[in-house]
Amino acid sequence: MRAIAIHEGEDAPQLVDVPEPTPGEGEALIRTLRVGIDGTDYNVIGGSHGGMPSGDNYQILGHEAVGVVVDPNGTDVEEGAVVVPTVRREATDGSRFFANDEADMAPADEYVERGIAGAHGYMAEYFTSPASELVEVDESMAPHGFLVEPLSNAEKAIEHANVARSMFEWSPERALVLGNGSLGLLALATLAGQYDRLYCVGRRDRPDPTIDILERLGATYVDSRETPVDEIADVHEPVDLAFEATGYAHHSFELIDTLAPNGIGALLGIPADWTFELDVGRLHREMVLENKVLLGSVNSNRRHFEQARASLSTFPEWFLEGLVTDVFTPESVDDAFERDDGDIKSVVEFATLDEV
Amino acid sequence: MRAIAIHEGEDAPQLVDVPEPTPGEGEALIRTLRVGIDGTDYNVIGGSHGGMPSGDNYQILGHEAVGVVVDPNGTDVEEGAVVVPTVRREATDGSRFFANDEADMAPADEYVERGIAGAHGYMAEYFTSPASELVEVDESMAPHGFLVEPLSNAEKAIEHANVARSMFEWSPERALVLGNGSLGLLALATLAGQYDRLYCVGRRDRPDPTIDILERLGATYVDSRETPVDEIADVHEPVDLAFEATGYAHHSFELIDTLAPNGIGALLGIPADWTFELDVGRLHREMVLENKVLLGSVNSNRRHFEQARASLSTFPEWFLEGLVTDVFTPESVDDAFERDDGDIKSVVEFATLDEV
Repeated sequence: MRAIAIHEGEDAPQLVDVPEPTPGEGEALIRTLRVGIDGTDYNVIGGSHGGMPSGDNYQILGHEAVGVVVDPNGTDVEEGAVVVPTVRREATDGSRFFANDEADMAPADEYVERGIAGAHGYMAEYFTSPASELVEVDESMAPHGFLVEPLSNAEKAIEHANVARSMFEWSPERALVLGNGSLGLLALATLAGQYDRLYCVGRRDRPDPTIDILERLGATYVDSRETPVDEIADVHEPVDLAFEATGYAHHSFELIDTLAPNGIGALLGIPADWTFELDVGRLHREMVLENKVLLGSVNSNRRHFEQARASLSTFPEWFLEGLVTDVFTPESVDDAFERDDGDIKSVVEFATLDEV
Repeated sequence: MRAIAIHEGEDAPQLVDVPEPTPGEGEALIRTLRVGIDGTDYNVIGGSHGGMPSGDNYQILGHEAVGVVVDPNGTDVEEGAVVVPTVRREATDGSRFFANDEADMAPADEYVERGIAGAHGYMAEYFTSPASELVEVDESMAPHGFLVEPLSNAEKAIEHANVARSMFEWSPERALVLGNGSLGLLALATLAGQYDRLYCVGRRDRPDPTIDILERLGATYVDSRETPVDEIADVHEPVDLAFEATGYAHHSFELIDTLAPNGIGALLGIPADWTFELDVGRLHREMVLENKVLLGSVNSNRRHFEQARASLSTFPEWFLEGLVTDVFTPESVDDAFERDDGDIKSVVEFATLDEV
């Protein structure tokens, strides 16, 4: 079957021919519809994050997938069901996090990640998955169901942030999203239902499709070239939740300055090493005296996939259509992974629901 | 009556004679037994934190107090009750945080703090307090009840940390306390009942009474001159909770390195400005990929005072006796505020229960 993989020592993914996978016990066989591309894929390609499956010199990419069950293989999923797979799989038996359906909280030595670290991904005509790791979505979600995975990461961070502030009456009204890429816009779309006032930070000139989308979601665009992040509280207003989706290392602590008292900053981006000067004393003091929190969040579990499915079903069609800017065939792999300023979300399409 | 106050423009507190306070409606009059001295008092004296009551050119110090009700003044506290006052008072009417008994989460413009910011403290023969802000303790706690206040700050931070980790099955076993001063030792004594393995970081040579106490509590002493904080995870083991009680700015982010995956660092110290170089990219990435949290925490509310009262009643007598190293009369104000390496907790005694 056709698959898109990165080979050891190479710096660009290729279309390859690999054997069709055979489902093991408890696993179903899924025909892939669409697989999204995100920043993590570029980190995997560049070798700064994740790694090849043990014993292989290539890795099939892709962790944001939607597909159709073609062989339930005795599991309780139904043939024809449209499903989204979770990403983490147990590396060795006996992880209590996997036993608790909390794979997202497992330490690094207890998991592999499909398409990212130590396991092949979903960017192929077929993939297998334990049926328990498939989240069924409505047929109408076939074109956009792959967004459940990135959105689930936002849902997890927001859930953890809300819980971290649950020992007092927190009444958050203002949220700031750092980053107007696809994860930032997905987070914004979810937060739009929960917050009165939204801000989104980017570095793009108008006219720009991401600015159009964020404004249509009701958010105020903040160009960080004009208003640095640590001035947002003064120029606009302090916020209760700051959601960092850029991986720009300066943001991790600058966002402390954007927060109102009792505010929380959720960090989701994955920066490289970067050493610079910082007034740590002041930031530390501000966190203490104003009860502020910084929360790192990675991955998501089944509960967050289900929450993302619910959120996604409420997103307007114009948003979903606007977010997915490019649909590529597997043969157009070079174009699919070429980054373009106009891109928001690129997706590789292996089949449509009609074809299955 | 006698009181200990700092005057504007002076750098040391003095014994002064001030009028006895008159309780207003809803307030009781309390005869002071003991008032503890802590790091915040030195910051108030030095002018780096807090400030004088509006219109006054001096401030009565003291926020860690225990006393006896001498005039209930029509409130529901009883004459003779041994009580500990909370610290924050509403600055202007209408704070929802005060209405919710969550003064600890109020923003700076909604509160004053007795003995710290904008209000006179308890270091006087008598003080008044709304009866609702008095936490009654057992008579047997008269000598050590003033420790309820500092301990309540630790209880709050631990509560918030536990809640912040409550969306998954967190099974914390290892705690690290940064700082072997009185707050660090109080936190350690509370954590000793909750954690299997404890570490406490200090910078003192043996023999030292704080090291004796922390070891008797079952903790391992870590001399940060030999084992820097960012090496503790390797030299000893990573921890689930790191409790920062030093106000040393380097610790705020070094403690990220001490944490196990899913760990949480609670910041309680209040450093001055301090700019230095830091690999922020690496720390940000580590927080994300390992689901780590940094939580700033200040002050405490009535619930935390009640928790502290419960914890304090379980602490062994040797711990309480060992912690309170010096008891001064108000006339010995100069000695009371002189810092000495052998000190753990100094206290000013205005009366004993027998005398009241």
